Amino acid sequence: MITLASDFGSPYPAAMKGVVLSRCDARLVDVAHDFPRQDVRTAAFWLREVLPWFPPAVHCAVIDPGVGTDRAALVVRAGETALVGPDNGLLVPTARAIAGSDGGESGGSAESATDDLRVYEWRADDPASSTFHGRDVFAPAAAAVHEALAGAGWPAAAEGEADPVAALDRAARTDDWTDLRFPAPDSASDLDGAATGEVLVVDGFGNAITDLPGDLLAGRERVRVNGDPYPVARAYAELPAGEPLVTVGSHGNVELAVNRGRGEAAFGVGVGDPVRLSEPSSD
Amino acid sequence: MITLASDFGSPYPAAMKGVVLSRCDARLVDVAHDFPRQDVRTAAFWLREVLPWFPPAVHCAVIDPGVGTDRAALVVRAGETALVGPDNGLLVPTARAIAGSDGGESGGSAESATDDLRVYEWRADDPASSTFHGRDVFAPAAAAVHEALAGAGWPAAAEGEADPVAALDRAARTDDWTDLRFPAPDSASDLDGAATGEVLVVDGFGNAITDLPGDLLAGRERVRVNGDPYPVARAYAELPAGEPLVTVGSHGNVELAVNRGRGEAAFGVGVGDPVRLSEPSSD
Amino acid sequence: MITLASDFGSPYPAAMKGVVLSRCDARLVDVAHDFPRQDVRTAAFWLREVLPWFPPAVHCAVIDPGVGTDRAALVVRAGETALVGPDNGLLVPTARAIAGSDGGESGGSAESATDDLRVYEWRADDPASSTFHGRDVFAPAAAAVHEALAGAGWPAAAEGEADPVAALDRAARTDDWTDLRFPAPDSASDLDGAATGEVLVVDGFGNAITDLPGDLLAGRERVRVNGDPYPVARAYAELPAGEPLVTVGSHGNVELAVNRGRGEAAFGVGVGDPVRLSEPSSD
Repeated sequence: MITLASDFGSPYPAAMKGVVLSRCDARLVDVAHDFPRQDVRTAAFWLREVLPWFPPAVHCAVIDPGVGTDRAALVVRAGETALVGPDNGLLVPTARAIAGSDGGESGGSAESATDDLRVYEWRADDPASSTFHGRDVFAPAAAAVHEALAGAGWPAAAEGEADPVAALDRAARTDDWTDLRFPAPDSASDLDGAATGEVLVVDGFGNAITDLPGDLLAGRERVRVNGDPYPVARAYAELPAGEPLVTVGSHGNVELAVNRGRGEAAFGVGVGDPVRLSEPSSD
Repeated sequence: MITLASDFGSPYPAAMKGVVLSRCDARLVDVAHDFPRQDVRTAAFWLREVLPWFPPAVHCAVIDPGVGTDRAALVVRAGETALVGPDNGLLVPTARAIAGSDGGESGGSAESATDDLRVYEWRADDPASSTFHGRDVFAPAAAAVHEALAGAGWPAAAEGEADPVAALDRAARTDDWTDLRFPAPDSASDLDGAATGEVLVVDGFGNAITDLPGDLLAGRERVRVNGDPYPVARAYAELPAGEPLVTVGSHGNVELAVNRGRGEAAFGVGVGDPVRLSEPSSD
Repeated sequence: MITLASDFGSPYPAAMKGVVLSRCDARLVDVAHDFPRQDVRTAAFWLREVLPWFPPAVHCAVIDPGVGTDRAALVVRAGETALVGPDNGLLVPTARAIAGSDGGESGGSAESATDDLRVYEWRADDPASSTFHGRDVFAPAAAAVHEALAGAGWPAAAEGEADPVAALDRAARTDDWTDLRFPAPDSASDLDGAATGEVLVVDGFGNAITDLPGDLLAGRERVRVNGDPYPVARAYAELPAGEPLVTVGSHGNVELAVNRGRGEAAFGVGVGDPVRLSEPSSD
């Protein structure tokens, strides 16, 4: 299975599909091709939300403002999964989540998280273009990795075993790659007065997804957001249509929403804006 | 085969795909994920237009403004097909169309239509989220139903035969579910002066699709729409570009269109607006 | 493998998928369904960009402003590939590119290009609608051609061999079909003072793709576009964000772009506008 994700819109991803299908017989799955253009950070968040739900696969993700420069192409092993894409941080949060050691989510250290990842630089020489490496570098790489793993898969972690990706003459292990982390929210297990985070992304429904852990809302009926009190709800429809609420989204984070409306407008927040949760009795 | 339909936009449906593919090896087909958000009625219309063209399948459709409330999750048998989604009427028009007994279209009674459907409540306990049941309830249900039917399929209608879906401990037959019907237009087989219906949906081309049966236009060259006369055409291109026309759409209903333009603007109508067809000689 | 491309938006293509899957077990691949509505020329350009990257397949492409009129339905053989769609020029540039003999690109003559194509008229009698031949004519045709070729594929070019498509009683060889060519740019291998072409399409990033061959930029650091000098770059990111540049796009043509911005706005050009490249020393 090879999944495809990009900010290419349409119809460029079709060329990637053609290249993959010319080289292997993998099942193809579209993840999304309408990520905000050249916004590595937002795409990295969303990939971390959706890709860990897949079985072991080859995920090819291309948000690549540095296409044609000397930024490297990477293959990242995370568990039994391979991620293929540019070396700009895009793949890293997903890789950590799949490897089960995302420092920001599990509290593990950056070092241990890094140790769990195995990263290869992919050396594609002479791509047909300098502007569409999704087609000319990453799709061929994904197909080659898929074929390499189609037999025995990755070796166990123990050193010394044959590594079918490392055996490809285009792949070379590297420890030199670009990290990307989302801000670690105040990790207080209760509000303890207040907790401050930020809006990571706004989804298509207008829900403002923060980096604050959802357990901050456990057992609460109301909470203040940036000073104003709001109801805490388990489901959007617990409130009347048009009413704002604070909930725990499907990602496990605190989410600012409006039943049948747009949370980012009602709360007056956008991506990167601070979000301060505090006790309803505080001010 | 499992098809997926939702109002989730992007990239949430990818998580549903991951969940399904983690649980079974079904072919996945995207129907659409850009239905108007939380508009059960419009999505129910479109699903009825497109899903009956599929071979027997498991159709998972999620337009679910009540997510996280106590609305039930349903599995509906229609012929050899299973529909999986929330109990808000979304699945019912499609189920009736596939079962061949849509009361509104075939003139059959509601009772007989109901009798042809077999409905199960799906009891998912403890979903991971209260806001994304597409991922946490309906995708797992679709995979489970697919696997249950992968052997012998549904039993014949005769009672007493083994029912592989009923055998799943999460599914229980129910007669308590939410119906949804589109307004029955004047069923006159000819205009007989006039016929009144309404605009059900406007498609992406701007065609205003009514609930009036297309045979009202049979043999006519002109017809009045809300008092004004228009040409009746078989093909959009029978009129010059920019000219309005009345035609029978691919759904068999009367459609208000403009060749290479937008019908809803030219006719001044939107969803839910009344449409009165009358004889060209009338006024 | 059957690919699908259209200007139908959503959810109409799902009906095409259902029809195909009711008739054969082919792998389905979505190319794009958001081509500009009823714009045959733009879609023809994009199809020529992406479809030649596929392995042999049946490509079903429907941009069809003449639906329901007497325009023919075509099946076009190009190499081991079949293209299915309306007779309005949509399929022709792709067919020539796949057959390896696009007159405009390779310099071959129109005659030889035409000779390499084998075109069949597809006679679908009595489609269910006069407005949705994607569902009622082209999807069934694509499935039938797929099944016909699933055995031995196309015969070698030599006459006298069995042709499984011609053997279908709905297909008949024809030499009467609509051509479509993109303007041949000045074919000077160097600027030789100046070269004039036009903008063929603007992609989703805002890149203005011209019909001027990319080798006009070989070895240059600067070039004038419509009189004003601009840097020539290999990669968008060679320039600071927001800066305009001229590059060779992934299609091999000269492209007017802005790093992390929109080229068509910065250069003040739209589809069909003239683009004159000249020496940086000229004025």
